[in-house]
Amino acid sequence: MRWADGFIAVDWGTTNRRAYRLDGAGKCIGEFEGDQGVLSVPAGGFPTAVAEIRERLGDKPLLLAGMVGSNRGWVEAPYIPCPASLDDLAKAVVRPSEREAIVPGIKDDADGHADVMRGEEVQLLGALAAEFIDADALICHPGTHNKWVIVRRSRIDGFRTVMTGELFSLLKEHSILSDLLGGKVEVGEAFCAGVRLGLANQDLPAELFTVRAQVLLGKAKNEDAASFASGLLIGTDVRIGLSYPTSAEVTVMGRPELTRLYAAAIREANRTANEIDGERCFLAGVVKIAEAIN
Amino acid sequence: MRWADGFIAVDWGTTNRRAYRLDGAGKCIGEFEGDQGVLSVPAGGFPTAVAEIRERLGDKPLLLAGMVGSNRGWVEAPYIPCPASLDDLAKAVVRPSEREAIVPGIKDDADGHADVMRGEEVQLLGALAAEFIDADALICHPGTHNKWVIVRRSRIDGFRTVMTGELFSLLKEHSILSDLLGGKVEVGEAFCAGVRLGLANQDLPAELFTVRAQVLLGKAKNEDAASFASGLLIGTDVRIGLSYPTSAEVTVMGRPELTRLYAAAIREANRTANEIDGERCFLAGVVKIAEAIN
Repeated sequence: MRWADGFIAVDWGTTNRRAYRLDGAGKCIGEFEGDQGVLSVPAGGFPTAVAEIRERLGDKPLLLAGMVGSNRGWVEAPYIPCPASLDDLAKAVVRPSEREAIVPGIKDDADGHADVMRGEEVQLLGALAAEFIDADALICHPGTHNKWVIVRRSRIDGFRTVMTGELFSLLKEHSILSDLLGGKVEVGEAFCAGVRLGLANQDLPAELFTVRAQVLLGKAKNEDAASFASGLLIGTDVRIGLSYPTSAEVTVMGRPELTRLYAAAIREANRTANEIDGERCFLAGVVKIAEAIN
Repeated sequence: MRWADGFIAVDWGTTNRRAYRLDGAGKCIGEFEGDQGVLSVPAGGFPTAVAEIRERLGDKPLLLAGMVGSNRGWVEAPYIPCPASLDDLAKAVVRPSEREAIVPGIKDDADGHADVMRGEEVQLLGALAAEFIDADALICHPGTHNKWVIVRRSRIDGFRTVMTGELFSLLKEHSILSDLLGGKVEVGEAFCAGVRLGLANQDLPAELFTVRAQVLLGKAKNEDAASFASGLLIGTDVRIGLSYPTSAEVTVMGRPELTRLYAAAIREANRTANEIDGERCFLAGVVKIAEAIN
């Protein structure tokens, strides 16, 4: 078991996985992505799925993060509590064998609060360990479930999940708004109008219906509906996130096509927003965790 | 064309239809219900679908309400504006032939507002014409899309749609909460706790995620999740509806299994709520419209 000679890191989510081969210097020298998420692996199928990753990227130690450590994954890596540092994460990895380590998720259960994350913590704490962001920060991490994360002294102090990505996807795939939401979401006048409404207005399940009514009554254009609805959901999300009592600049971390939308919405709320690529943070995080468990 | 000798009324929605045979005195003497909603009728298929209704209930004039009059239905009956009375509705029926009449929907497009209804107007104006409810009222009409309706001098003065029923259904069928929301929704402590949260809290897309996090962290019971989530959505809905500036008693109209939940939530907000069966209102409405177009 020599992690210092290089390893494979996998960001293994519910519906997809992304695997990276890192050399002894922490440089990425190979990668692949696929839709073999945790839910697609049959019962007892993880050893085979893991062997397949090694066939493609080399016979190296494996560091696994994301839903692979959930109760639907390979071996459960129980949530660690806030405040949580990168060292706390590394100490709590679970080892299916000495050649694999599964990173735990983090829970926030302070004061009647209840929230969980799995996968984002590697990016968040990686960016802090690598000093891509300040030791005290408010981070917005969009995805299926957006996370608003308060960081104090380089530790995750608390967080809140907003189901924005999943709600948009449900409305687009299965709702009465489906035929209106197929278009491309773009930062423009319709998106910003939706954002302003979401920032100012608490009536989301009523405002969503107006997306349809406005088109039916000729008050809005069909082709603007997707951007407006996305803006409405993201504006609501940003209103919730910015209620954290901090005036820090917001860092938006994740996939660039999503951070772009959230950064625009945060600016619409008159706050500054700094975008950072989540993949770069993930790679920084796995290198730091591998160093710690070496 | 002698409507006074009895007719057939059909409440024809997107995914189901309910047909009633009324005698010359307005008494229901036969009925059936099925899932042949508007979306299941192929292009050009309405004459056949209508003939089939007459085969089952008699060769009588047909009064059709609901999505059958939409742009996805048989013949479009354009929305009439607010304020709208039962007479306004009767005057605006559209006649595919002299043996059928399609009731229009109603739109509320005042002051940058945009909302539409189709189907509920027959129940609402029927209940007013039959004096089941006062001429000035606030009505809550739950369903896939709940309607909050302001009535002044027996006319629909304005209304607002909240997508509560559809959101619950999307979350139950297709979301990460699916495996938690299959249970029966009942008025009890979990439901009322959800209602109170929805009444007090504007962060619906964040609070929905806590339904899952609370179960994962052992803070809530799996079997309470459906009632809690339903209460959260309905509490949010009631908060929106009760923002109408009126102190009138709220009438909750519709299917008894839904009016029961909304009435409980409205009482949780310290307002009185009066339940009324929507089918009874529909039958009163179609009799009044048939008299007016006779």
